[in-house]
Amino acid sequence: MPIIEAVRWSPDGAVRIVDQRRLPAELVERDLRTVEEVCDAIRSLAVRGAPAIGIAGAMGLVAALRGVPAGSREALLARATSLASAIKATRPTAVNLAWAVDRVLARGCASAGTAAEVIEAMRAEATAILDEDRAMCRRIGEHGAALIPDGARVLTHCNAGALATGGIGTALAAVYLAVEQGKRVSVLADETRPLLQGSRLTAWELRRAGIPVTVLADNMAAWAMGDGLVDLCIVGADRIAANGDVANKIGTYGVAVAARHHGIPFYVAAPASTFDPATPEGSAIEIEQRSPDEIRRGFGVATAPDDVDVLNPAFDITPAALVTAIVSDVAVHRPPYDFRRAPDA
Amino acid sequence: MPIIEAVRWSPDGAVRIVDQRRLPAELVERDLRTVEEVCDAIRSLAVRGAPAIGIAGAMGLVAALRGVPAGSREALLARATSLASAIKATRPTAVNLAWAVDRVLARGCASAGTAAEVIEAMRAEATAILDEDRAMCRRIGEHGAALIPDGARVLTHCNAGALATGGIGTALAAVYLAVEQGKRVSVLADETRPLLQGSRLTAWELRRAGIPVTVLADNMAAWAMGDGLVDLCIVGADRIAANGDVANKIGTYGVAVAARHHGIPFYVAAPASTFDPATPEGSAIEIEQRSPDEIRRGFGVATAPDDVDVLNPAFDITPAALVTAIVSDVAVHRPPYDFRRAPDA
Repeated sequence: MPIIEAVRWSPDGAVRIVDQRRLPAELVERDLRTVEEVCDAIRSLAVRGAPAIGIAGAMGLVAALRGVPAGSREALLARATSLASAIKATRPTAVNLAWAVDRVLARGCASAGTAAEVIEAMRAEATAILDEDRAMCRRIGEHGAALIPDGARVLTHCNAGALATGGIGTALAAVYLAVEQGKRVSVLADETRPLLQGSRLTAWELRRAGIPVTVLADNMAAWAMGDGLVDLCIVGADRIAANGDVANKIGTYGVAVAARHHGIPFYVAAPASTFDPATPEGSAIEIEQRSPDEIRRGFGVATAPDDVDVLNPAFDITPAALVTAIVSDVAVHRPPYDFRRAPDA
Repeated sequence: MPIIEAVRWSPDGAVRIVDQRRLPAELVERDLRTVEEVCDAIRSLAVRGAPAIGIAGAMGLVAALRGVPAGSREALLARATSLASAIKATRPTAVNLAWAVDRVLARGCASAGTAAEVIEAMRAEATAILDEDRAMCRRIGEHGAALIPDGARVLTHCNAGALATGGIGTALAAVYLAVEQGKRVSVLADETRPLLQGSRLTAWELRRAGIPVTVLADNMAAWAMGDGLVDLCIVGADRIAANGDVANKIGTYGVAVAARHHGIPFYVAAPASTFDPATPEGSAIEIEQRSPDEIRRGFGVATAPDDVDVLNPAFDITPAALVTAIVSDVAVHRPPYDFRRAPDA
């Protein structure tokens, strides 16, 4: 089962990413060697998904440092700090990016030795972040696979797959591991307007792994449930409030409402790092509105009157009451949810 | 309030249609004078919506006959029969098209007099069909407007507007007449994948009429309801079973499920001719699957892997239990619905 690796080291120490702007038309890998290449890849969404962005930023900081002429430890760290700022500035609201880049930078600052030795320490830290993400995905997958019966037809929304992480994804990790366990699983992928991560990315990576996948427009999900084509739903999460309310890609809430109407289980899969004890409930999460042109001319053609008013929320909030279980790398959490403190491993 | 007229006579007796393929980019009207032009307009979806197609076909038969050299009554009727067959063959499953074209043809056959007099009788019949449709839309609008309170924010799906009929539409007729009555009404228009009739057509015709409209992707409707942005939903119907189950554009069912979840009224507006006493319930209606390429490359770009499996049902069935009321030209029908015979006027 060839599961795509969205971010990894190239043999010569560059950051090798899958250029997701080219999917599903073609698989193009890109080796990032300079800070400009790293920043451009993140800014242009060549790499996307919070974990994958963080990993690419952390590894990219190391790769970019290699081009720095040999010099003192102090000069290297000054340069590293400057590169880290540039990388973090590409997506200022991406908490995971800042966290990962700063973690590599801190390791460098804490390392004794020559400039070359500091770079090696930072490389080890970036590799640790990648490895931890891979292990985390796998643990989510193991917990999630237990919820997927043999023969299950699974509906998902957006892309919470290998393309969004350093490993095998979150929601799709459960599918991958269920298949690895010998279960027959097929997937219905909502296309996920406006940016079509479902039809472009989820469908692509599942096909590559040999898992049967069928694409449908978002407005067909309720029909598919009513027609008996869906056994369970599983999606990812951007943030999970202390009471279990889930912020995820716009459209997730509609899937959850339809699943409840049809008595179909609705699961959320995400790392425990997604739990936000500081946010008591979903209503405290502000909903960012994205560019109206994603709706008005999202495919390069006029799909609505030029200056028509548009709603384009980036995500929505699914209340905990609609979530059958939350699958993390730590456990399968059942209601009533309580994430006021980080769960014990 | 300039409400667009989708089909009308040109001053010199051609069929003047709005070319809906050019919307929302530009308003292009096209005068159809030959049977080739009429057939092409229907086949290519330049004209769409069951009532509008029927009217364009009926009027188109008359317009095309004008080009026939003067001759005997018999020769004219033979020619008319041949043209009628060609027009009906453009959309063989469009019941309304066959009905309207045959009605004009029958009037011709039943008319005495010269060829010119027969053509005039057929023209009168086609005009009667147009006028009846306009009156029917207005009656639906009058019944529906009574359900729309002042200040209402109305969510609709697809295009059940003036562009789909000879008059002011069905679902949108209720909006137009509520506004005509002085009520302040705004509309949320689902973009309606895959063919985007909501963002391309509904948004366009409402803006033209000066009615505030906001476009959103289909998967945002549940979020909008949860966020308190929707007071009621109103949609059209392709067919209504005897028990009140409603076949309409794919996605309608999901809107109805979400409306029920949020306690929001969900109305269906359609002519009484849409009631199908011969179909006891929605499950008896076969769901046609449309071309996968509408999902895979609906905007001229690859939005999914080339040969991925796709679900693309043309419509779905909303069970009567989710429908607050059905608005026809005859009455506002409330549950329990019983359309086993045509309703009394």
